[in-house]
Amino acid sequence: MKEQLFEKLNRSYDEMVEIRRYLHQHPELSFREKKTAAYIAKYYQNLGITDIRTGVGGNGIVAKISGGKPGKTIALRADFDALPIQEETGLPFQSTTPGVMHACGHDGHMAILLVLAKILFEMREELAGNYVFIHQHAEELSPGGAKPMIEDGCLDGVDAIFGTHLWATVPYGTVAYRKGPIMAAADRFEIKINGYGGHGAQPHKTKDSIVIASQLVMNLQQIVSRKVDPIESAVLSIGYFRAENSFNVIADQVILGGTVRTFKPEMQEMIEKELERITRGTCHAADCDFEFHYYKGYPAVENHDEETELLVQCAKEIPEIDLVEESVPEMTGEDFAYYLKNVQGTFFFTGAKPENLSVPFPHHHPKFDINEKAMLAAAKTLGLVALQAAEL
Amino acid sequence: MKEQLFEKLNRSYDEMVEIRRYLHQHPELSFREKKTAAYIAKYYQNLGITDIRTGVGGNGIVAKISGGKPGKTIALRADFDALPIQEETGLPFQSTTPGVMHACGHDGHMAILLVLAKILFEMREELAGNYVFIHQHAEELSPGGAKPMIEDGCLDGVDAIFGTHLWATVPYGTVAYRKGPIMAAADRFEIKINGYGGHGAQPHKTKDSIVIASQLVMNLQQIVSRKVDPIESAVLSIGYFRAENSFNVIADQVILGGTVRTFKPEMQEMIEKELERITRGTCHAADCDFEFHYYKGYPAVENHDEETELLVQCAKEIPEIDLVEESVPEMTGEDFAYYLKNVQGTFFFTGAKPENLSVPFPHHHPKFDINEKAMLAAAKTLGLVALQAAEL
Amino acid sequence: MKEQLFEKLNRSYDEMVEIRRYLHQHPELSFREKKTAAYIAKYYQNLGITDIRTGVGGNGIVAKISGGKPGKTIALRADFDALPIQEETGLPFQSTTPGVMHACGHDGHMAILLVLAKILFEMREELAGNYVFIHQHAEELSPGGAKPMIEDGCLDGVDAIFGTHLWATVPYGTVAYRKGPIMAAADRFEIKINGYGGHGAQPHKTKDSIVIASQLVMNLQQIVSRKVDPIESAVLSIGYFRAENSFNVIADQVILGGTVRTFKPEMQEMIEKELERITRGTCHAADCDFEFHYYKGYPAVENHDEETELLVQCAKEIPEIDLVEESVPEMTGEDFAYYLKNVQGTFFFTGAKPENLSVPFPHHHPKFDINEKAMLAAAKTLGLVALQAAEL
Amino acid sequence: MKEQLFEKLNRSYDEMVEIRRYLHQHPELSFREKKTAAYIAKYYQNLGITDIRTGVGGNGIVAKISGGKPGKTIALRADFDALPIQEETGLPFQSTTPGVMHACGHDGHMAILLVLAKILFEMREELAGNYVFIHQHAEELSPGGAKPMIEDGCLDGVDAIFGTHLWATVPYGTVAYRKGPIMAAADRFEIKINGYGGHGAQPHKTKDSIVIASQLVMNLQQIVSRKVDPIESAVLSIGYFRAENSFNVIADQVILGGTVRTFKPEMQEMIEKELERITRGTCHAADCDFEFHYYKGYPAVENHDEETELLVQCAKEIPEIDLVEESVPEMTGEDFAYYLKNVQGTFFFTGAKPENLSVPFPHHHPKFDINEKAMLAAAKTLGLVALQAAEL
Repeated sequence: MKEQLFEKLNRSYDEMVEIRRYLHQHPELSFREKKTAAYIAKYYQNLGITDIRTGVGGNGIVAKISGGKPGKTIALRADFDALPIQEETGLPFQSTTPGVMHACGHDGHMAILLVLAKILFEMREELAGNYVFIHQHAEELSPGGAKPMIEDGCLDGVDAIFGTHLWATVPYGTVAYRKGPIMAAADRFEIKINGYGGHGAQPHKTKDSIVIASQLVMNLQQIVSRKVDPIESAVLSIGYFRAENSFNVIADQVILGGTVRTFKPEMQEMIEKELERITRGTCHAADCDFEFHYYKGYPAVENHDEETELLVQCAKEIPEIDLVEESVPEMTGEDFAYYLKNVQGTFFFTGAKPENLSVPFPHHHPKFDINEKAMLAAAKTLGLVALQAAEL
Repeated sequence: MKEQLFEKLNRSYDEMVEIRRYLHQHPELSFREKKTAAYIAKYYQNLGITDIRTGVGGNGIVAKISGGKPGKTIALRADFDALPIQEETGLPFQSTTPGVMHACGHDGHMAILLVLAKILFEMREELAGNYVFIHQHAEELSPGGAKPMIEDGCLDGVDAIFGTHLWATVPYGTVAYRKGPIMAAADRFEIKINGYGGHGAQPHKTKDSIVIASQLVMNLQQIVSRKVDPIESAVLSIGYFRAENSFNVIADQVILGGTVRTFKPEMQEMIEKELERITRGTCHAADCDFEFHYYKGYPAVENHDEETELLVQCAKEIPEIDLVEESVPEMTGEDFAYYLKNVQGTFFFTGAKPENLSVPFPHHHPKFDINEKAMLAAAKTLGLVALQAAEL
Repeated sequence: MKEQLFEKLNRSYDEMVEIRRYLHQHPELSFREKKTAAYIAKYYQNLGITDIRTGVGGNGIVAKISGGKPGKTIALRADFDALPIQEETGLPFQSTTPGVMHACGHDGHMAILLVLAKILFEMREELAGNYVFIHQHAEELSPGGAKPMIEDGCLDGVDAIFGTHLWATVPYGTVAYRKGPIMAAADRFEIKINGYGGHGAQPHKTKDSIVIASQLVMNLQQIVSRKVDPIESAVLSIGYFRAENSFNVIADQVILGGTVRTFKPEMQEMIEKELERITRGTCHAADCDFEFHYYKGYPAVENHDEETELLVQCAKEIPEIDLVEESVPEMTGEDFAYYLKNVQGTFFFTGAKPENLSVPFPHHHPKFDINEKAMLAAAKTLGLVALQAAEL
Repeated sequence: MKEQLFEKLNRSYDEMVEIRRYLHQHPELSFREKKTAAYIAKYYQNLGITDIRTGVGGNGIVAKISGGKPGKTIALRADFDALPIQEETGLPFQSTTPGVMHACGHDGHMAILLVLAKILFEMREELAGNYVFIHQHAEELSPGGAKPMIEDGCLDGVDAIFGTHLWATVPYGTVAYRKGPIMAAADRFEIKINGYGGHGAQPHKTKDSIVIASQLVMNLQQIVSRKVDPIESAVLSIGYFRAENSFNVIADQVILGGTVRTFKPEMQEMIEKELERITRGTCHAADCDFEFHYYKGYPAVENHDEETELLVQCAKEIPEIDLVEESVPEMTGEDFAYYLKNVQGTFFFTGAKPENLSVPFPHHHPKFDINEKAMLAAAKTLGLVALQAAEL
């Protein structure tokens, strides 16, 4: 059966490339992926699959097929939104929508899952269990599509879920797995420092917001340098610091914001608390008011042990994969996290570094690209792990 | 002669008010004061004064009259530009030009000088010496009008110069003088911190410009707290801090700028040097590049002793003035400074606080106003000091 | 009478030098000046003056004489304690007490006042008014001797008081006066940061007192840089920062302390308040406790206008004085301040820069010395101003 | 053979306790462990072992025995120095030397190794390979005893080495292992900030070392918060900050020092470089000099894979051990690191938490104690792993 799966996938590789390139030309922003969703739904309809739900939790699509034998219900997930980036790759199949680009590989994710679904549907009589294909919208933009899709039932009856990310900074031929946290919780915060403005020549009549906010930035460095256990991981970065005045005016207000990345809920909670208390103390010292907003983003992606072990075994059987290695945890976020809070499963990286580049362009870069062959490796891995998980 | 001067000014007070209100309704921005200049020139022409130069160093006007007796040549100066402020006083003679307002009293300065010139011209046969009426454009905007007017000869042959500023935060009835520095040198600086940007989750691959710039802001506090002699005066304020990125991005660059105020050239030089060295050291510590620009503005207004003493004596003889007091030095700037670097003279404040306000609106405020009676007091003071200085 | 006074002082100059050198050899620390007090008392007894009080407010001595004519009661004050400094001048009359030195000129102050008292006593029949000679102990060490002497009645019946400080950094031949504040209020503070110590490798289990205290030091710079009106004067300096641990331990506690100098009570109060609030806010940010102690030292020495004007007139008549100039305010403190809070008077500097030094050693330096001729100039100035004040 | 080993160890447990308690009563400081060394040497002599070297690389002792069959040469190491701590346990066998205490468990390490050596010596005819018992002095004080002992030949002919640390914060019954880095490199640094002192009231004449050093402390926080890859581990802590002056003096010099902990040489190098550059930049900004000293301590303890796997297998066979778990890396240091740079081997923690304490006192605490039963568990683990390693 494995051989059959691999053989069928090999033969459908060209279709996979074709689908990926078509979708690459027609990217849509998070929560606005109407045409992409229609394209996906139509593909399933054309296959003859009848158990299709559209508009799941927003623009999500869920298709289901049943094997001819009893077994577990296994979900596979692919995300399908694009990014607000102006493409600069110069590829023949470059985005045709100005300012929007599939700069994260979601076009490849769709192609993998659609073709894999087609083949599993062809093989359905011989298969054990059931297969749920979750096409998720809005991965790139918090609060994301995973949560509303789950709330809308996409995991109902599912025993385990698997997903992969084509990863342009990992060499082709590699599967990178990790038990436990593999991607970070990614939170956002914004702080308004409400000082009291005035003439640049009369500081004593003001509360200088720029000085207060600068002090806060310095004070916040201690969260990571002093409060985080050195063998744990956490990041706190300030992304913006807005104080736009004339040169001879003292700023009334500064707005600054940034991101917090963690792998454990207790660390996340500790940092939120420290951030708030340091802001409060710094503003108390400066006798000024502030507003503090902390927005929890996706939680950490925490893989389950059993499914990860299964993945490792399966990955070693894929002809295209010559290295199955433990991944370092990535500080970036993914709303696949929500699925793993509801059912067993694992999320992994499939090496997709373009062959012609010694240093690949990172995800979200205007020149980002993937090695398309990685789609085949990913489809085989996902397919095999699904078949085996269904039989357990 | 003093009595005659005062009497004539008393009788011309209504004209002064009328002129001021007309000009208040028709403000023009710095370096664009074409109609105002034409108004002034026409006034002198109508009086029958023939020694009028227009377009002096830009839009400046210089008129001269000679007394019937020998004596010194005394210059009086009034500035005539307005500010980019939308007036909100609700006065019947409010600005008719949207977004432009005489919010610093220059309308009054013109009225004072024009009417005083008229009266001195009437009295010319009996007067000693010569009188130069300098109507200066562009005081509000560095590099200002004083410098080009001087270069264009407005001080040629002048022995001493006097000027006043109607000052809305000083009570009516007061003349505030000061020997030595009365208004500060006002400089501007801009610093670009060129770090190295990246993803907010990967600080170790970046040079975080916001942290570097915040550290710089903190370090710069030491210039005033540690490097300035406590009995001297200096200000260093940061007015803007520009770092506009997404919350999850580490800033590539921060641009910050501000102002330095000093009274003494050696202090000004020390601060420029410290500012540059602290920036250099801070960026060296952070292993990043920077650009440093320091723009010298107007120098400090430094009054000469002899003329200031004369002013004090004269001010005590003005019926409208009941308090002649030493002024604290003001940290704001004035390009009257340039005249005093070329000839002897003094610059003083004439109290012009509106009667109906316990706390007056500050200069450059949309609701700024003056007590018009202060124009009469100022005209008498300037007139008397000019007559006496001419006779010395 | 002025001529007689000057003549008599000229003739007693050698005695003045002799007294000063004897006392220089026998310095005593603040509050322990028993022998010095005895020396002074004996001098007055030997003169035949009978109105002598000893042990006034501690070790103070007060002697009084009455003139033959009616007039006011004028006090003159000299302080007589020495410093805990090991002298390194190598002078023939160097201190004979190890580790104790007259390094501030109080030896000279005593010599001036004793000899002046002798001469006024000789001239008493011709003089108007009464003269009180206040020899004050413990000027160098807060809470000082002035306050208890006043409480013990040394100013009872006094109409005005005068005092001078021989000032080694002002050239000989100069009297430096100032209306209003001439010397600063000198306060002391101590802050204990109570963090939570631990192993240097485990910062997350601690509250790092050194980081918290360093942050506090940085934050405190803003008091002078942002909260003090630039045309006013204030100093805040940290003198000690104690955190003595092994290199691999995180500090449980830091103790830091310093000084605050101001001229105006409202400034003093503002700074104490800011200091406390910034400490509180900084410790709140760090979630740690602290102890804050602020000790008010001598208030500012604030001269009265009328007596200062009289001093200026008198100083101009002293043959040894060729420059009477306004002094900048000194940031150092003096408990003469207390006398001026109770009666009218003025305190001034008598230039005493040694002739052989282009850069004199500062007060409190182990090589400090004075130009002894300044004693004569000071005695004449004090004497003349006392005579004229008594007659007013 | 395993059963025989365990049985013999069981029977010698009382002796182990006796030895440990005797040594606990007689602690000696690092590099001064003369009596302890003599005690160890005598123990081996009494057993009849003849291959004993004393004074190895200082106070080290190396004893060797050969098995009756061919095999590898396996070293086991125990350290034997104590700490400069005043014991406060109140135990009946408390330290009899004031201010010196076995507060890290080295007394137990000795007891384990001595008794294990005795038993292996008894069993020698049946054993394969050779056994080297390394008793190392001076583990607590850099540069440590391991390095000179290695240079003096203690590892000559050794194929693999094993060592354990009784660990009071890990529950009894646990062996904690780790492949790769298990304990950190522990470096020390000292920085002298050479400002320019002066009077607290005259900051402008000084370079305020306390402010400069405080700024440095704040700037250094960025090394961990911004320069260390969040998924890596590193610590930088300041342990002392010496600035001892009078409250009204500005500090001429500050001396500060601390520790750096890392697991990877490239991280260690990066931090040393950043530390030096941030110091240089901060001092450049302040226009002052500095001295920078960085002392590399023990490198990280990096376990080898094969020996660690063998350890895990063996540990699972020890009756007293019910949990064999991966350890987190410890940020503290150990000079066992040097052995592992020369031969294969592994270092592990044997859980020794006292039974009566829910929260044990940490190592180096005056009340530190161990669960003595852990000695038996450790002896069995070390013995078994040695036997098996010798046979490989």
